[in-house]
Amino acid sequence: MACSKDDSFKLADGVTLPLAENFVKDIDGKTVSLYTLQNQHGLRADITNYGGRIVSLLVPDKDNVFDDIVTGYHTIDEFIQSEEAYFGALIGRYGNRIGQARFEIDGEEYELNANNGPNSLHGGPGGFHNVVWDAEQPDGQTLVLTYLSPHLEEGFPGNLQTTVTYVLNDDNELVISYHAETDRATHINLTSHAFFNLAGEGSSTINDHFLRINADHFTPVDESLIPTGEIQPVENTPLDFREYHQIGERIQSDHPQMVYGNGYDHNFVLNPNNNSDELNFAASVYDPVSRRKMEVYTSEPGMQFYGGNFLSGNEVGKRGEPYLHRSSFCLETQHFPDSPNQPGFPSTLLLPGEEYYTTTVYKFSVKSD
Amino acid sequence: MACSKDDSFKLADGVTLPLAENFVKDIDGKTVSLYTLQNQHGLRADITNYGGRIVSLLVPDKDNVFDDIVTGYHTIDEFIQSEEAYFGALIGRYGNRIGQARFEIDGEEYELNANNGPNSLHGGPGGFHNVVWDAEQPDGQTLVLTYLSPHLEEGFPGNLQTTVTYVLNDDNELVISYHAETDRATHINLTSHAFFNLAGEGSSTINDHFLRINADHFTPVDESLIPTGEIQPVENTPLDFREYHQIGERIQSDHPQMVYGNGYDHNFVLNPNNNSDELNFAASVYDPVSRRKMEVYTSEPGMQFYGGNFLSGNEVGKRGEPYLHRSSFCLETQHFPDSPNQPGFPSTLLLPGEEYYTTTVYKFSVKSD
Repeated sequence: MACSKDDSFKLADGVTLPLAENFVKDIDGKTVSLYTLQNQHGLRADITNYGGRIVSLLVPDKDNVFDDIVTGYHTIDEFIQSEEAYFGALIGRYGNRIGQARFEIDGEEYELNANNGPNSLHGGPGGFHNVVWDAEQPDGQTLVLTYLSPHLEEGFPGNLQTTVTYVLNDDNELVISYHAETDRATHINLTSHAFFNLAGEGSSTINDHFLRINADHFTPVDESLIPTGEIQPVENTPLDFREYHQIGERIQSDHPQMVYGNGYDHNFVLNPNNNSDELNFAASVYDPVSRRKMEVYTSEPGMQFYGGNFLSGNEVGKRGEPYLHRSSFCLETQHFPDSPNQPGFPSTLLLPGEEYYTTTVYKFSVKSD
Repeated sequence: MACSKDDSFKLADGVTLPLAENFVKDIDGKTVSLYTLQNQHGLRADITNYGGRIVSLLVPDKDNVFDDIVTGYHTIDEFIQSEEAYFGALIGRYGNRIGQARFEIDGEEYELNANNGPNSLHGGPGGFHNVVWDAEQPDGQTLVLTYLSPHLEEGFPGNLQTTVTYVLNDDNELVISYHAETDRATHINLTSHAFFNLAGEGSSTINDHFLRINADHFTPVDESLIPTGEIQPVENTPLDFREYHQIGERIQSDHPQMVYGNGYDHNFVLNPNNNSDELNFAASVYDPVSRRKMEVYTSEPGMQFYGGNFLSGNEVGKRGEPYLHRSSFCLETQHFPDSPNQPGFPSTLLLPGEEYYTTTVYKFSVKSD
C-alpha cells in the first residue's frame, strides 16, 4: 500500500520537543512537571502546571508538516526568568486590566496589587500565570489543573476554587474549560495567554497572517489601555476584521486606538451566534504560506486581539530565534477589561453558590485555497 | 399658637382625590381596587392593582401646597381605554424594547408578542401594565403586589413569580422594590412607567424643568429605537445632563439621536457610585416655579429618560387638562434596552434558583434657591 499523505508525519526543520526533565522543579512546596496530550492525528500539546502554561503545540500544515506554533521555552527556568511574563499561561483571577487596581463590592473596597502603572494586569504579579497548579491526567488527551486561590490573594476577595481542563480532542481542537466557585462575592475573568505564530514559533512576523474577527464593535481604551466605557463600531477603523485582513495591512494607522495600543491590543465585542447552546464563533486566522488555520470559539462575550507589540527581540525561544516585535499574536477570550468598574459592561461578579463556567476552543485545520 | 408653615396643608387648585369606588372592577376574575399610602408629612400615593399603576401622587411645593404630580385618570375605565397604555404602570416582563420581538436562550428561540412594529415594547400588549396584581397592605405606607406570570405569557419562558412593593416612607421617598423568581431561564427587566410633571399633572410642559442625570454615557439607538450596541459619551450631545439643564434647552437639536427619539427617549448608562451597598444616584429634576424636586436612586445600571414625545393632547387627565406633547416625563430605571440580543450589555438573564431583586427610590423635596 502506498503511503498516503495522511500517513506521513514530519516535524518542520528546527522543531524539537520539550523534555519533561527540564520542567521538574519544586516551587512553593509543589512539584512542577510537564504533561503531554496527543490526539489520533498527531497533534500534540505539552503543558506545565507552572502557570498552567502551554509549552508547545504541534499542528500540521498543508503538507502535514508539524510545527510548534506557540512561543515559549524548553526549560522551566527560562519561563520563570522571561521578560515576557505570560507566554502560554493561564490568566487569573482577572484577565486584562482593572483600572487603578481597585473595585468595590457591597460597599467594601478591594485594593489589588498594581503591576501596570496604577492598574492591575492579568491578576497581578502573583497571578495564576505564576502559581503551581495541581495536575491530573485522566487520559492521554486531557489535563485537569486545579488551584485554590486564597482569600485576598493579589487583593481579590474570596477563596476561589478553580479548575481548568485542557482537552486535545480528535477534531483537532484544543478545548480549555474554566470552572470556579467562591465563598465570597468576587470578580473573575479567566483566559489563556497563548502566543501564536502559525508559521511556527520564532518566525519573524505575524503581520502576514490573515485574521477575521466576528465583532461589529469593540471597547475603546484611553492612553493607559483602560476602557473609556464606550462600545464603538469597528466600521471605518483598523479594527474592522469582519472580513479577512492581513494583520499588518493597517498596522501603521494613526487611528488613536492604534496609537494607544501601540498596534493591536483591543477587546472585541463578539457578535452573538443566536444559538446560545453552542459556542460562539469568535475568530479565524491563517498563515498564507503554511496555510495552518486556527479558529476560536467561545462562551465569552469578548476577545482581546493582541498583536505582540511588546515583544522586543530580547527573548530567544525554543529553536533559538528571537521573539521579535509582532512575531506572535494572542486571541484571549474574556469578559471586557475593567468590568468591575464599568457599569455598562457585562458583569464579572461571581457570588457564593454560583458556578463560573466558560469554554474556549482553538480549532486547527488547513485553509483551503 | 400661630400656624407655622409646616403645619399647613393645602391642595393646589383643581386637585381632587381619586375615589376608590371608581376603581372597583372585576377583570380576568380578579378584583381591581384602589389602595392609598400616606406618610406622616402628608404625602399620599394612590395605587391600583390594575397594572400596579400609580393613580395619583401628592407632593408639596415650596409653600407646602400639595399637587398631584403624575398623569392618569380618576376612573379605572379611563386607564383601560387610554391611548397611552402605560400611565403610572409597572412594566414587565421587559421594560423598553426587544428588537424583532425575539431572543434565544440555550439554543431555544422565543418569539414575543410584537407591539411596536416588529419589536416588543414593555413586555408586549398583555404586559404587567395590563394585568391584575394580587394586593396586600401590611400597613398604611406599604402596598405589596404579587403576580404569577405563566410560562410563555407574551412569549417569555418560565413561570415568573413577581412581587413589587411600594413604600411611601417618612423620608418622603416612594420606594419601589422588585423581586422575581423563575423556574426556567428567562430575561427580565422590570420598571415603573410613572409620568411626572412636578408643576402638577396637566400642566402644559416639562421643558422648563431642570434635569440632571448621573451618566457619562448613553446607548444610542437606530431609527426604530433599538440600540445599535454602542455605548457613547454624552459629551457634546444634547444628552449631556451631567449638570442641570432645562429639558427644553436642546430639545430642537438636529442631533440624529434626538431625531430618532423625536426628542428625549434614551437609555443612560449610570455612573457607579463606588459604594455598591447603597443605591446609585441616577437623576435629579425640579420645577423652577413650584420648586418641587425629585431625585432618583436605583440599583439598576441604566435609566430611560423619556420626554413625553408621544403625548398628543388627545388624552384628558384628572383635572380636565389635555396631556399635551412633552407635558410629562419618565425616568425609568432599568437594564439596557434589547439586552437579550446585545452581547456587550449587562445581562438580563434570570436563572432558576436565582433571585431578581432591584430597588428604585423617588425622593421628593423642595429645591433650595
